Amino acid sequence: MAAATLARRIGRSGVLPLCCRPPAWDRPARPPPSPLQPPGLAPCRSFSNNKIQVELDESSGVAMMKFKSPPVNSLSLEFLTEFSISLEKLENNRACRGVIITSVVPKIFSSGLDITEMCGKSVEHYTEFWRAVQEMWLRLYGSNMVTVAAVNGSSPAGGCLIALSCDYRIMAENPKFSIGLNEAQLGIVAPFWFKDTFVNVVGHRIAERSLQLGSLHPAPEAQKLGLVDELVPEEKLMEKAAAVMTQWLALPDHARQLTKSMMRKAVLDRLVAHREEDIKNFITFVSKESIQKSLRMYMEMLKKRKS
Amino acid sequence: MAAATLARRIGRSGVLPLCCRPPAWDRPARPPPSPLQPPGLAPCRSFSNNKIQVELDESSGVAMMKFKSPPVNSLSLEFLTEFSISLEKLENNRACRGVIITSVVPKIFSSGLDITEMCGKSVEHYTEFWRAVQEMWLRLYGSNMVTVAAVNGSSPAGGCLIALSCDYRIMAENPKFSIGLNEAQLGIVAPFWFKDTFVNVVGHRIAERSLQLGSLHPAPEAQKLGLVDELVPEEKLMEKAAAVMTQWLALPDHARQLTKSMMRKAVLDRLVAHREEDIKNFITFVSKESIQKSLRMYMEMLKKRKS
Amino acid sequence: MAAATLARRIGRSGVLPLCCRPPAWDRPARPPPSPLQPPGLAPCRSFSNNKIQVELDESSGVAMMKFKSPPVNSLSLEFLTEFSISLEKLENNRACRGVIITSVVPKIFSSGLDITEMCGKSVEHYTEFWRAVQEMWLRLYGSNMVTVAAVNGSSPAGGCLIALSCDYRIMAENPKFSIGLNEAQLGIVAPFWFKDTFVNVVGHRIAERSLQLGSLHPAPEAQKLGLVDELVPEEKLMEKAAAVMTQWLALPDHARQLTKSMMRKAVLDRLVAHREEDIKNFITFVSKESIQKSLRMYMEMLKKRKS
Repeated sequence: MAAATLARRIGRSGVLPLCCRPPAWDRPARPPPSPLQPPGLAPCRSFSNNKIQVELDESSGVAMMKFKSPPVNSLSLEFLTEFSISLEKLENNRACRGVIITSVVPKIFSSGLDITEMCGKSVEHYTEFWRAVQEMWLRLYGSNMVTVAAVNGSSPAGGCLIALSCDYRIMAENPKFSIGLNEAQLGIVAPFWFKDTFVNVVGHRIAERSLQLGSLHPAPEAQKLGLVDELVPEEKLMEKAAAVMTQWLALPDHARQLTKSMMRKAVLDRLVAHREEDIKNFITFVSKESIQKSLRMYMEMLKKRKS
Repeated sequence: MAAATLARRIGRSGVLPLCCRPPAWDRPARPPPSPLQPPGLAPCRSFSNNKIQVELDESSGVAMMKFKSPPVNSLSLEFLTEFSISLEKLENNRACRGVIITSVVPKIFSSGLDITEMCGKSVEHYTEFWRAVQEMWLRLYGSNMVTVAAVNGSSPAGGCLIALSCDYRIMAENPKFSIGLNEAQLGIVAPFWFKDTFVNVVGHRIAERSLQLGSLHPAPEAQKLGLVDELVPEEKLMEKAAAVMTQWLALPDHARQLTKSMMRKAVLDRLVAHREEDIKNFITFVSKESIQKSLRMYMEMLKKRKS
Repeated sequence: MAAATLARRIGRSGVLPLCCRPPAWDRPARPPPSPLQPPGLAPCRSFSNNKIQVELDESSGVAMMKFKSPPVNSLSLEFLTEFSISLEKLENNRACRGVIITSVVPKIFSSGLDITEMCGKSVEHYTEFWRAVQEMWLRLYGSNMVTVAAVNGSSPAGGCLIALSCDYRIMAENPKFSIGLNEAQLGIVAPFWFKDTFVNVVGHRIAERSLQLGSLHPAPEAQKLGLVDELVPEEKLMEKAAAVMTQWLALPDHARQLTKSMMRKAVLDRLVAHREEDIKNFITFVSKESIQKSLRMYMEMLKKRKS
């Protein structure tokens, strides 16, 4: 589905059509799936779009969500919208209790926000794009499901945010793969809710230093800082992610969901309370000629590197 | 003294009869004990009840408080009330500057809240019980005394909260002893002030993971996470606790107390501001048939394990 | 310049004459220096006063600020005022992007607040002094420049605050040098904004314990706690500080400054909102006969130690 089509589906209101229910973190926690469901015989459902492939194993209650948007899984408006829709579908599916997020693109988990969405576009486009970034984070950070990031490649900026928003982060122990909120390197500033999410994971001091330096941490350093929870050889990544998921799903959903909400609500509420203001800030910032120039130069550099 | 007797002493108001003074953390700090008191000749005072034994060495200003409620020092209404009364007595005794908290029950520090108090009882009972849990924490976390936990056995849930509320935690280095806020394992959710206390000790990330998994951490892991400050062989535990107490008492009381209050006030104030709401939440939660069923099943399991 | 002269320059308003502009952290971030400036040919400007020597290398944009107030670089009213003026001069100089702070006094970075300013003086004097302490911290913690502390000696109390307020702390790896907020040892209490700064660096638990014990941490322990970022042999300290500065200056100023402000604004705003109340608290506290007695005894002890 093209971005334009999706934009129509979403409409001017900026609200996803599937969002008739409030986001998960603002709803009462779900009751556990009915024990009447025959174990072992549940069908394996899957759905897919241009950007993301999802397979749900209903017997285990675990979905596998794979980013498949080469060359670098960049977070375009289309990608973000499909991501939010996929999360919402799983959230609303009582058979799904957890999701493992990974990439099928070699060496890249996600390269972060798509810079072409921020370059030479209209105010309406910036508004729609930024709302989609917010929506994705609100759904992921506030998800009632257990969320495990299987980080099988580099993961700068928005890609790092996706990993930080999960309940657990496992990374391939390849020192060539790096992860971090490196916005400052591009002359831009991570929004306050990227920062809040980061502080909740690594604490204030590490976040302050890493954000100011726009650091991209190689996997071993990322683990040392607490940015990822553990490293495993790349070929063991999915096996480990499944094992971690099993451990987390051993807990009763209701208690786990309420506990997660208690830990994350303050930071989620902060964006909800300042959402329009945050969009305005983004537009003001991205509309500056100096920023547009920086972004254009950065894109030129990326193009040259490719060719 | 039976719980019923205590309940009468406390009355419908739910206020302990000894609480005519505001709790310690809301009072001006105490002046130091008079230097006229003859050193070395001070009497060793002790008091005791069904649940807790207290010995105060007036020469050192240090009280030893021992939980003695077999089989597992569970925090019944009676236990909590005696605990609060004991803390209040020591707080009001100018000769007492610090208290070491430990257990005389082998292998158990405290098993946490007494589940029988939450099962098949009246709303009045739940209200009284929960108020007693709050009261205990407000007195302990806000104590003007130096509080050292000598954790000589396992310490799940409410037992962990007691340790977390002290100024310093020493644990016997026995990997069979574990500690943690494992409420989620029982399908229940730790209240926000348990969480706040935990976050203040181990930080947001470790708390988020540990609370969602309802983890019970073996002593060595607990130390690694910062949940306890140090491990010593069990036979050296009391000696070490006394040495730590001496180190903390070397500081002028007044400055230490004001500093402690500065660090803990925000979290204490939060419960005080939401105390009635917190009681209502507990009652709503515990009155649910699904929760009652979980708790009954858990008690059955405990009974079977014993026999 | 004597403290009396400075006091006249500052006047009853307590506002530094150079402060016509709002402090850096409340201003829009500065644009980068013009690229037309000829590199390598920029003059090296320096200025100096009784207390502090400053050399700015305009080619690199880095200033070296050296405390030179023997015997112990204590933070008198005069020192604090000169410190704030020096920071303001650099902040307003477009050629300056970063400052390295160190000491020329052997074995001492700074011994903290000058106790003679708190002993037997008038309420007017206490007001002026405390406002100067606040002003120094607001300028340093909120500076738009990259600030690196090259801690080449012991650094108790207010000296530690200066280091904590920088972006990065390097300490000489001499275990005889110690650092910490040891106010409680003197029977006084660190103000809430000292505490907030400390918590932002080492987290809540380490701050709670260290502040209550008034700990002075030897350099190796300080690094382990995260109080300083790294240790190097004393003879390599300046070389390392310059290398760290180069690393931080590689980032675009604008993005780095906005990120720094995002991380520190809440804590800076808190003092700004409670500044007068904080001054009143200080005056009430320091005016107590018991505190005056403690401070006099401490000064007597220091005098005896010298002779």
